[in-house]
Amino acid sequence: MAYNLLKGKKGIIFGALDEFSIAWKTAERVHEEGGTFVLTNAPIAMRMGKINELAEKTGSVIIPADATSEEDLDALVAQAMETLGGKLDFVLHSIGMSINVRKGRSYTDQKYDFTTKGWDVSALSFHKVMQSLYKADAMNPWGSIVALTYMAAQRTFPDYNDMADNKAYLESVARSFGYFFGKEKKVRVNTISQSPTPTTAGKGVKGFDGFIAYAEKMSPLGNATALECANYTVSLFSDLTRKVTMQNLFHDGGFSSTGVSQEVIDGFTE
Amino acid sequence: MAYNLLKGKKGIIFGALDEFSIAWKTAERVHEEGGTFVLTNAPIAMRMGKINELAEKTGSVIIPADATSEEDLDALVAQAMETLGGKLDFVLHSIGMSINVRKGRSYTDQKYDFTTKGWDVSALSFHKVMQSLYKADAMNPWGSIVALTYMAAQRTFPDYNDMADNKAYLESVARSFGYFFGKEKKVRVNTISQSPTPTTAGKGVKGFDGFIAYAEKMSPLGNATALECANYTVSLFSDLTRKVTMQNLFHDGGFSSTGVSQEVIDGFTE
Amino acid sequence: MAYNLLKGKKGIIFGALDEFSIAWKTAERVHEEGGTFVLTNAPIAMRMGKINELAEKTGSVIIPADATSEEDLDALVAQAMETLGGKLDFVLHSIGMSINVRKGRSYTDQKYDFTTKGWDVSALSFHKVMQSLYKADAMNPWGSIVALTYMAAQRTFPDYNDMADNKAYLESVARSFGYFFGKEKKVRVNTISQSPTPTTAGKGVKGFDGFIAYAEKMSPLGNATALECANYTVSLFSDLTRKVTMQNLFHDGGFSSTGVSQEVIDGFTE
Amino acid sequence: MAYNLLKGKKGIIFGALDEFSIAWKTAERVHEEGGTFVLTNAPIAMRMGKINELAEKTGSVIIPADATSEEDLDALVAQAMETLGGKLDFVLHSIGMSINVRKGRSYTDQKYDFTTKGWDVSALSFHKVMQSLYKADAMNPWGSIVALTYMAAQRTFPDYNDMADNKAYLESVARSFGYFFGKEKKVRVNTISQSPTPTTAGKGVKGFDGFIAYAEKMSPLGNATALECANYTVSLFSDLTRKVTMQNLFHDGGFSSTGVSQEVIDGFTE
Repeated sequence: MAYNLLKGKKGIIFGALDEFSIAWKTAERVHEEGGTFVLTNAPIAMRMGKINELAEKTGSVIIPADATSEEDLDALVAQAMETLGGKLDFVLHSIGMSINVRKGRSYTDQKYDFTTKGWDVSALSFHKVMQSLYKADAMNPWGSIVALTYMAAQRTFPDYNDMADNKAYLESVARSFGYFFGKEKKVRVNTISQSPTPTTAGKGVKGFDGFIAYAEKMSPLGNATALECANYTVSLFSDLTRKVTMQNLFHDGGFSSTGVSQEVIDGFTE
Repeated sequence: MAYNLLKGKKGIIFGALDEFSIAWKTAERVHEEGGTFVLTNAPIAMRMGKINELAEKTGSVIIPADATSEEDLDALVAQAMETLGGKLDFVLHSIGMSINVRKGRSYTDQKYDFTTKGWDVSALSFHKVMQSLYKADAMNPWGSIVALTYMAAQRTFPDYNDMADNKAYLESVARSFGYFFGKEKKVRVNTISQSPTPTTAGKGVKGFDGFIAYAEKMSPLGNATALECANYTVSLFSDLTRKVTMQNLFHDGGFSSTGVSQEVIDGFTE
Repeated sequence: MAYNLLKGKKGIIFGALDEFSIAWKTAERVHEEGGTFVLTNAPIAMRMGKINELAEKTGSVIIPADATSEEDLDALVAQAMETLGGKLDFVLHSIGMSINVRKGRSYTDQKYDFTTKGWDVSALSFHKVMQSLYKADAMNPWGSIVALTYMAAQRTFPDYNDMADNKAYLESVARSFGYFFGKEKKVRVNTISQSPTPTTAGKGVKGFDGFIAYAEKMSPLGNATALECANYTVSLFSDLTRKVTMQNLFHDGGFSSTGVSQEVIDGFTE
Repeated sequence: MAYNLLKGKKGIIFGALDEFSIAWKTAERVHEEGGTFVLTNAPIAMRMGKINELAEKTGSVIIPADATSEEDLDALVAQAMETLGGKLDFVLHSIGMSINVRKGRSYTDQKYDFTTKGWDVSALSFHKVMQSLYKADAMNPWGSIVALTYMAAQRTFPDYNDMADNKAYLESVARSFGYFFGKEKKVRVNTISQSPTPTTAGKGVKGFDGFIAYAEKMSPLGNATALECANYTVSLFSDLTRKVTMQNLFHDGGFSSTGVSQEVIDGFTE
């Protein structure tokens, strides 16, 4: 499907690693809908990924940036406006990682250097991105900023570890900055709380397979895929959703509003 | 704007009274996006309104129905499918009224006959509509059902009276029925929690002008209009939002996530 | 334990059926804490239960009342004040039943006469109780009104049926009436959202055993018992919680904030 | 009032600065209820405050600790158990500060060194405290850990700045750690979301007077005081609330559930 929903709109997409990434799918869909954009990722992620392939396919320029570096972000924003020929209409933040998770440290045995680094990359980076955009007055009125998050910000999933707290911070940043971006620039800021998604990053987490199977059984419509998330993001970038702001939007096939499903409860009844 | 987002989609729109109605604006936007639909309203509302004008403009058939009558609703669903030539893809429920409000009775002095009637019309009717659709197997897979609601379901606004409780019930019905419609029919059910909107019904409520002025000052993006709500509803009827279900979605310029705005607090500081 | 927390406080306790009832346990605990009260229940429930035993044990008078009847409630409030010798400090509403559940009708096949009756008994009755108290000016300043509810008001549990919607309405009534009771009478109104509890009513529901086992495994502290709920209610009746109002308070061992527990997810991992 | 609610219980109270502090009032009330405890605060705060007076009054030992230092916290926990003669039953975390606020930097112009320091002190410190307790196995079964927070974690208050995001992180830590503390140690963890309170720290914030006046008018029962918060904390430390965990509990006179009050809306109506 393609509707020309984003014709003439310009933006930045953070976090496309490979074809399993939500950001990758979003870039493809935004391109199909007529939007143009700059792709960005951390230098190290770019070496691992295949972002050049995506850039070629979507006619995009790649500008590497460390999302924890104000300097990198300021440069990115300036270059993006120059490359795209004007102010921006949309930004996708799809960045997250926990060193505690990677190193196999449990939530109750965190190494705080890891925690701080993970918070900086996964949560504070969203503030930094928006502060760079705000200071450069880089967003057009009625622009839309979206970050991806997960429901662990509201309810505990044991293996999600310190990412839960990072996502809670990220969602708060969306509300807090959304207030000022709304008042001053007429720009909206929201987070999408997405089903567990088998991205390359996700698949590496301990217990991910069991978790995604559980979520599938708990969600009346099944888990939302990366492509479906891309579609939803397109709707939030479009002019159809101009007055939605400071919201955390569940895109999860109904998981978040399901106390228990029949399939799951059946396992507890003889 | 028009994107062909609803091309080939069929539905029913409840509650269009006049050009100030959200349902009216939605009908116009759905028509522009290529959707076809039946318009319906209570016989009494139809006499007061100008629904024929809308029907003509959008090439729609009008089928009167009392949304509290199972018989009327069953007939409506059957006739809608016949008229439109197949199963349905979208339904908008935009119905609400409180006799306690109309009669000037305060929340603490309700007449329970009025309360019961208001609940039946404003809240239970949404269950009745969905039960008729469900039993007739009238919805296509990936269809979308939306009802309009208001934030009084979460927080008290003194003049909103028993409509607050009705909206809480309505939102619960969306979640509860959404579970079964999701599991069994792959249909999504959501509510949009809209800014106060100067519809013909809304404007009649005591203190409405002050309230809408307050909401405007509290909302970083300003109040959402009826047309903007129509646009948002179109996005929820479209295929871009297939995995959003059982959600209450605030469409309010950020009001719901604003503790207080600078403008409002300034009035309390000397 | 007994702390004299409710010494000199007077109240009404609705819904004690037998020793498995939360209201029964609450009556016992309130008595131990020095409170005096009137017990009330529907005439039919009183014939089935053993409320006389409880009345004797706690030195209480029983006044039968149909909680859907304004006349009965007005009389109850007047007689309670007369019996207890003054205005009231606490009220417990523990009333609920669904005829759709009893008759085995699924959520998508409701008989609306049953739905209306269940709503009147389970949800509107809370408004009626408070309206009688409010009109009679029967509550002392800093009094406390509590109703019991269940998390199905927020998330769907397939077998909970129309009680989910009734509980959503009940919780909204607590907020709405809490606003006016707070402003005008300095009285607080809250709901306790309790773990599934094996009361005589609860145990009759289809699938209850499996459900309670599931909840036990999902709750980090295990399910809350009827006695623990009574203790929590005592804390809400006491002077320690004077500024808590219009809240829905989860008393569930952490169920409501747990996305999934290790025990439950383990069943999905090979 | 005094009920012996905490007789025999031992704990640690963080953050008592002077008699306006919530932690100070909590220490007094815990002492009245029969609890014994260690007082702790950052060395610098102790020089500014009058904590010795409180220690004398309550028969408590003071152990200075920087709540961002694992080493200090480990030592504090060990010494507290030694001083009190056993494991702990309650802990109060009442710590927070934003250098961005102090330095007058707006939310959209943060200095990230300040942000990181404020997050470490205000939010991560709660994790560090609990990790020290957890590793030392310092909590008795059915112990209770409480941290103070503010509703800015859910809704934006422009002057609250980066403390909003810190509080969101803190509340998430309560849920996340509450899961493990519940499962493994039968300990509950909650946050109290308190009305704006004229503490020495609070009063220093720009616009605080206007804000507290606004909150007073918006709260049906008025703002909750420091003493009332101390009482509520006592109830959460007591055995009456054993199954309440992983919750954020509003103690705010109803502010959080009030959309608008009559007094506030009246200012917008001519």
